Amino acid sequence: MPIFEIKKQDGHSRARRGVLHTAHGDVQTPIFMPVGTCGTVKAMTNEEVENLGAQIILGNTYHLYLRPGLEILGETGGLHNFMNWQKPILTDSGGFQVFSLAKLGKVTPEGMHFQSHIDGSHLFMGPEESMRIQRIIGSDIAMAFDQCTAWPASHGEAEASLNLTMNWARKCLEQPRANGQLRFGIVQGSVYQDLRERACREIGAMEFEGIAIGGVSVGESEADMLKAIDFCAPCLPEEKPHYLMGVGTPRQIVEGIARGIDMFDCVLPTRMARNGSAYTPEGTIPIKAARYKSDYSPILEGCTCYACRNHSRAYIRHLLNCNEILGARLMSIHNLHFYLKLAADARLALEQDCFGQFAEEVIAKYPEAMGKDLE
Amino acid sequence: MPIFEIKKQDGHSRARRGVLHTAHGDVQTPIFMPVGTCGTVKAMTNEEVENLGAQIILGNTYHLYLRPGLEILGETGGLHNFMNWQKPILTDSGGFQVFSLAKLGKVTPEGMHFQSHIDGSHLFMGPEESMRIQRIIGSDIAMAFDQCTAWPASHGEAEASLNLTMNWARKCLEQPRANGQLRFGIVQGSVYQDLRERACREIGAMEFEGIAIGGVSVGESEADMLKAIDFCAPCLPEEKPHYLMGVGTPRQIVEGIARGIDMFDCVLPTRMARNGSAYTPEGTIPIKAARYKSDYSPILEGCTCYACRNHSRAYIRHLLNCNEILGARLMSIHNLHFYLKLAADARLALEQDCFGQFAEEVIAKYPEAMGKDLE
Repeated sequence: MPIFEIKKQDGHSRARRGVLHTAHGDVQTPIFMPVGTCGTVKAMTNEEVENLGAQIILGNTYHLYLRPGLEILGETGGLHNFMNWQKPILTDSGGFQVFSLAKLGKVTPEGMHFQSHIDGSHLFMGPEESMRIQRIIGSDIAMAFDQCTAWPASHGEAEASLNLTMNWARKCLEQPRANGQLRFGIVQGSVYQDLRERACREIGAMEFEGIAIGGVSVGESEADMLKAIDFCAPCLPEEKPHYLMGVGTPRQIVEGIARGIDMFDCVLPTRMARNGSAYTPEGTIPIKAARYKSDYSPILEGCTCYACRNHSRAYIRHLLNCNEILGARLMSIHNLHFYLKLAADARLALEQDCFGQFAEEVIAKYPEAMGKDLE
Repeated sequence: MPIFEIKKQDGHSRARRGVLHTAHGDVQTPIFMPVGTCGTVKAMTNEEVENLGAQIILGNTYHLYLRPGLEILGETGGLHNFMNWQKPILTDSGGFQVFSLAKLGKVTPEGMHFQSHIDGSHLFMGPEESMRIQRIIGSDIAMAFDQCTAWPASHGEAEASLNLTMNWARKCLEQPRANGQLRFGIVQGSVYQDLRERACREIGAMEFEGIAIGGVSVGESEADMLKAIDFCAPCLPEEKPHYLMGVGTPRQIVEGIARGIDMFDCVLPTRMARNGSAYTPEGTIPIKAARYKSDYSPILEGCTCYACRNHSRAYIRHLLNCNEILGARLMSIHNLHFYLKLAADARLALEQDCFGQFAEEVIAKYPEAMGKDLE
């Protein structure tokens, strides 16, 4: 049985409705994957995450390597047991956090020297280390260790960085893996068509079970991001699952699906939640704003999430202003529900041959991103 | 129908098994009431609080007066609607927070001048103001506005303070109240037998529906606290519910029940939870300690709470060390479950005529309090 089956191909776009088979169960695509950085989707229990319809979550290799560390992850037989989540887990390679969060030291052909953002200790991660950590974590999908190319980058810089990523990709495939663990390669190449195309061809030809587009949503405009995906889309191996890393707004996710992307992850719904921004089809609204002080309607009229069924904007605003944990919880529930429902609606539209209309409606309503923060 | 019915009187102690009828339903006593300071039991949804078996929660008049404020509470028709909690609510009078949290200004025969701990604004609260706020909150049980006597206090100081509390108690009874709202008077008198006895007699003779012992757990030893309760116990009107304010440890609650107390509230379970201390029959354990790093057993063997059924000490320790909200949540669930089960077990023991044995076992296991913090 192939690990990825395409159940239906949209007639008017590259969008497809698929199923990804993993060691911990099937994932219906297109799918949004909530981020569980340190072995918890922030503010949520596993039960709540499952009840929202999440089929797969992310773990961050860099964070889990620092805490709880390999000794504990090894003792428990991996992250599934440690956090008691029995559905699929995808781990990133750690490279992006070394790039964005840690104090980066020397980059060598072997990997990256860096200092922990927690205690400043000197550490090193390369393809061997990353795959070893992901093997111990026991994720269902391990990502190849790559170098996320900074933005902006000249063509020469982007090419040098891509060459490093390619060498590391090959090294990753030589490492042993956990039982049943799938491996996805990552396409870099910045905003340059020739580099993106070359990366897709070469990574696509390697024996990765899936392929991811990385180096997007790193500061470039939404238009530039979509252009980078457009460069990649025709060159991605059709039979493998396509994952767009760290993207994005609801609008960007639908744009991605139309370009043949099957999997998405993003910290936006949970991070925006804790900051007090709630998702609606017309964009996010700042629930802490004074104009919601006496607003006794739910966050989003007609929304069926626990927060909207039980509480008003005025109450949630009060909780957020008092720094009450329940405020962050209700907002996280609403925002994750919104993202997971978006993916479910996209799947349904594909099944019912009306994806084009669905996508048009979402995109018409949702504002173009102004820029956002990174994890 | 009387608002309080005693279903069973223990043959060997003052403990009794009762039912308190309120506008939002019955409360089976003895009962522990989780504290919902700002209109939320910290870190918990209403659904979770109900599922843990809570029958009644507390709201803090001082906190709710500052945020969300009377305008919003008035607009929504009270706290029940604002927070969507449809079971009984008891509100304290605000006096204790003015005493412990705000910057206290001049105390006059009319009330207390103070500055908000949030924005420093100058405010005033006396019996009229407190009862008006509690009327707008619409609590099922309103507490009389009292002066919490500081500890230690000389006999003269305690007497002067008690006189103020008595005058305020009479004024509280002259105020209008919310529909169906019950009013409890508060007994002060510090550690002095004559003052405590006088307060019990005088407050007991007023037309309050219940009576509370205040001015305990303010810094005195556990022995001194129990002595103060012992002074009061024989003088409390038997037919009215007895409430011991802000107490305490599991051991102290059982000691209180044996002395005829029907109702308890305390921030300890939720506050200790957020600080990483978990309740067990032998006392609290600091889950963040290094010795639990690789401890894959639940917080408490045999405990049926969500945290213990699903997660290990090692995982919860990891969450707490990463400041993950789920850590505070799992700890709060466990600790509230522990307190609510303690009260449920006490009720069962009373029904089965074995309260003496139950109390002895709890007290033998649980260490005497070393002192604790105040809200």
